[in-house]
Amino acid sequence: MLDAALAACNPALCVPLHLPSLPKGRTVVVGAGKAAAAMAQAVEQHWPGPLDGLVVTRYGHGVPCQRIEVVEASHPVPDAAGAAAAGRILESVKGLTRDDLVLCLVSGGASALLALAAPGLTLADKQQVNRSLLKCGAAISEMNCVRKHLSAIKGGRLAAAAYPARVVSLIISDVPGDDVSIIGSGPTVPDPTSFADARAICEKYKIALSASLAARFASADETPKPGDPRFARAETILIARPQDALEAAAAAARRAGYQPVILGDSLEGEARDVALVHAGIARQVLRHGQPQPAPVALISGGETTVTLRGSGRGGRNAEFLLALTVALDGQPGIHALACDTDGIDGTEDNAGAIAGPDSLARGRANGLDAKAMLADNDGYGFFAGIDDLIVTGPTRTNVNDFRVILVERPA
Amino acid sequence: MLDAALAACNPALCVPLHLPSLPKGRTVVVGAGKAAAAMAQAVEQHWPGPLDGLVVTRYGHGVPCQRIEVVEASHPVPDAAGAAAAGRILESVKGLTRDDLVLCLVSGGASALLALAAPGLTLADKQQVNRSLLKCGAAISEMNCVRKHLSAIKGGRLAAAAYPARVVSLIISDVPGDDVSIIGSGPTVPDPTSFADARAICEKYKIALSASLAARFASADETPKPGDPRFARAETILIARPQDALEAAAAAARRAGYQPVILGDSLEGEARDVALVHAGIARQVLRHGQPQPAPVALISGGETTVTLRGSGRGGRNAEFLLALTVALDGQPGIHALACDTDGIDGTEDNAGAIAGPDSLARGRANGLDAKAMLADNDGYGFFAGIDDLIVTGPTRTNVNDFRVILVERPA
Repeated sequence: MLDAALAACNPALCVPLHLPSLPKGRTVVVGAGKAAAAMAQAVEQHWPGPLDGLVVTRYGHGVPCQRIEVVEASHPVPDAAGAAAAGRILESVKGLTRDDLVLCLVSGGASALLALAAPGLTLADKQQVNRSLLKCGAAISEMNCVRKHLSAIKGGRLAAAAYPARVVSLIISDVPGDDVSIIGSGPTVPDPTSFADARAICEKYKIALSASLAARFASADETPKPGDPRFARAETILIARPQDALEAAAAAARRAGYQPVILGDSLEGEARDVALVHAGIARQVLRHGQPQPAPVALISGGETTVTLRGSGRGGRNAEFLLALTVALDGQPGIHALACDTDGIDGTEDNAGAIAGPDSLARGRANGLDAKAMLADNDGYGFFAGIDDLIVTGPTRTNVNDFRVILVERPA
Repeated sequence: MLDAALAACNPALCVPLHLPSLPKGRTVVVGAGKAAAAMAQAVEQHWPGPLDGLVVTRYGHGVPCQRIEVVEASHPVPDAAGAAAAGRILESVKGLTRDDLVLCLVSGGASALLALAAPGLTLADKQQVNRSLLKCGAAISEMNCVRKHLSAIKGGRLAAAAYPARVVSLIISDVPGDDVSIIGSGPTVPDPTSFADARAICEKYKIALSASLAARFASADETPKPGDPRFARAETILIARPQDALEAAAAAARRAGYQPVILGDSLEGEARDVALVHAGIARQVLRHGQPQPAPVALISGGETTVTLRGSGRGGRNAEFLLALTVALDGQPGIHALACDTDGIDGTEDNAGAIAGPDSLARGRANGLDAKAMLADNDGYGFFAGIDDLIVTGPTRTNVNDFRVILVERPA
């Protein structure tokens, strides 16, 4: 099911289906995100005319390209490599004409990778805010609202700079609702949010602002808004969404004899509590045959959050899975998988992990106390300790998290 | 749907169906819980022979009985009235013969109402632990494990005292999995938990123990365990469960043209995060027609928890509903209800509340900031302010929480 989900959002398969027609003039390919290099490679392999360009992706997510330069940079906290690439991308779309085409390849991660500080700000300012946002449990829409207002390229500024060229954005969504103004902080999409919104988010999460950030937040340099004429020749095409991955997994489940139940493509909440609800639904399948009788595959996507309390290792998928394991307490007949579709759960080397009825016992046999490790946010440690991590390496796509719980028919 | 759910677990309707046969000797009716008085009344009205007895219920949950004495006492923190009643109940079942019958009426709340301190402990000791348990976010199974080990009557001790009389327990479940050893701390059911478990729970939640409590936890006065011969003549009958309430609500939904989707009869987790997951599933119905196409009624039971951060008013159902309202952000076509089936959400006078697409706007019009009030745990204040509380008064039954989200077909 994970393989099917990843295939559905593989750039090599979904980019070629959505390429626009050749322009009279130049084709400039730009882009950013965890899938940017793989998308660029797919464009190169299928583009029937001349092109050149530059994309920026996460360290380790690059793939060889012939004509499009690929830069690797830091994610989720931006670095100088990303900032330099973003500056060059912005410059590369300036001075184009109506006959030219900018093909913009956007995927999750673009927001951190396209970190070009707005006037008056430094990369250090942006890094500080990013770190605070990542720690405080802000939703991705909230993080990106703030990021847009610290940026010289996001929130539609890239498309505005490319005007009057035609701008076609191919987008792989990793956000709830697949709102193209949020994905990658919408570099080619009008921004409905404002400085006031960004300020409110920083206040909500009590994020301290340096003097330069405070000055920026008080400036009049707003992002281009819906209705701005510079977007008249800009279009966006969603080429892969979390829902597409879930549907592909559902089809795989059906082929294997499991009734798929897709709970949602964008479930949010604290990972351990989301796990408790999933555990409750799985138990309902077992005890009462609802919402469907077993064998069932409960499938969900979307991004949970983790409020760090301990000092363990692991991303939100390991945390979800460890909380689920503790909640199910060895319940026979239930197996689960949780992975980040980008191949990297948090900041570790795993995509996620798998868990089953014997996980707790195997942990105990290895001296691992699941409850204590959950309290310490050490999901990685637990699943590494029982050799149940899933390690895919970077998948070079990103449709957010993928979770499945298989519930067998009771014996 | 709420009415249907409450009818399904109304003692007047479900007690008479499960009465045992008349004994040769005496019939002694005892019991505790939010439904105890209503259950006693139903017994009296349908019992074909002599009886006498005593039950204890929460303040405000009493109903007039002719032959069974009804005592009201404090819940969720025990008081002297409950302790005195518990002592009299324990005495009343001692010295019975094999020809006698003890009819024990157990429902949610019994654990706090049957507060008879074990040797060496005072009511104040029990109150202190209860308050700590209620504040720390412990699961009901964890709270009851601790309570059993501080009690002279819970954890099977009542049935052990009644031996060799026949003991028939009619039980209304309010706990996940409907485990009769957990409901009301199982006064007539063998206790599989131990002092070691109780100590571990107190350590987990960092509950400070007085010297007398520590001494108790180190004593050898264990609860009677499964296999104890004093349970040979004890039987338990579940007469109403959360699932029965959800099924009744589902039938009502179906009659009204909504496809019911029962997510679980025992969902747990922090109320605001459980709400986020419910919001995500409701959005999935709207956007993708999954797990069922609209019109749908998403139904769930079980008890969420609230970790207090603010100083507002309200129980877990108001908190759930306010978080849901904030998450759905005025989404058209979605209405929700969340209530405690006992009629009292937390410590306020409401059972719960309702919410709809206009709740946020009506709140704003009344000067209410939903997000800020959620941060302050002030769900009661918000829904009181827009006059959307549900006030039923005590329902005199208790099958835990009841939540329903109606998702209309998109226009």
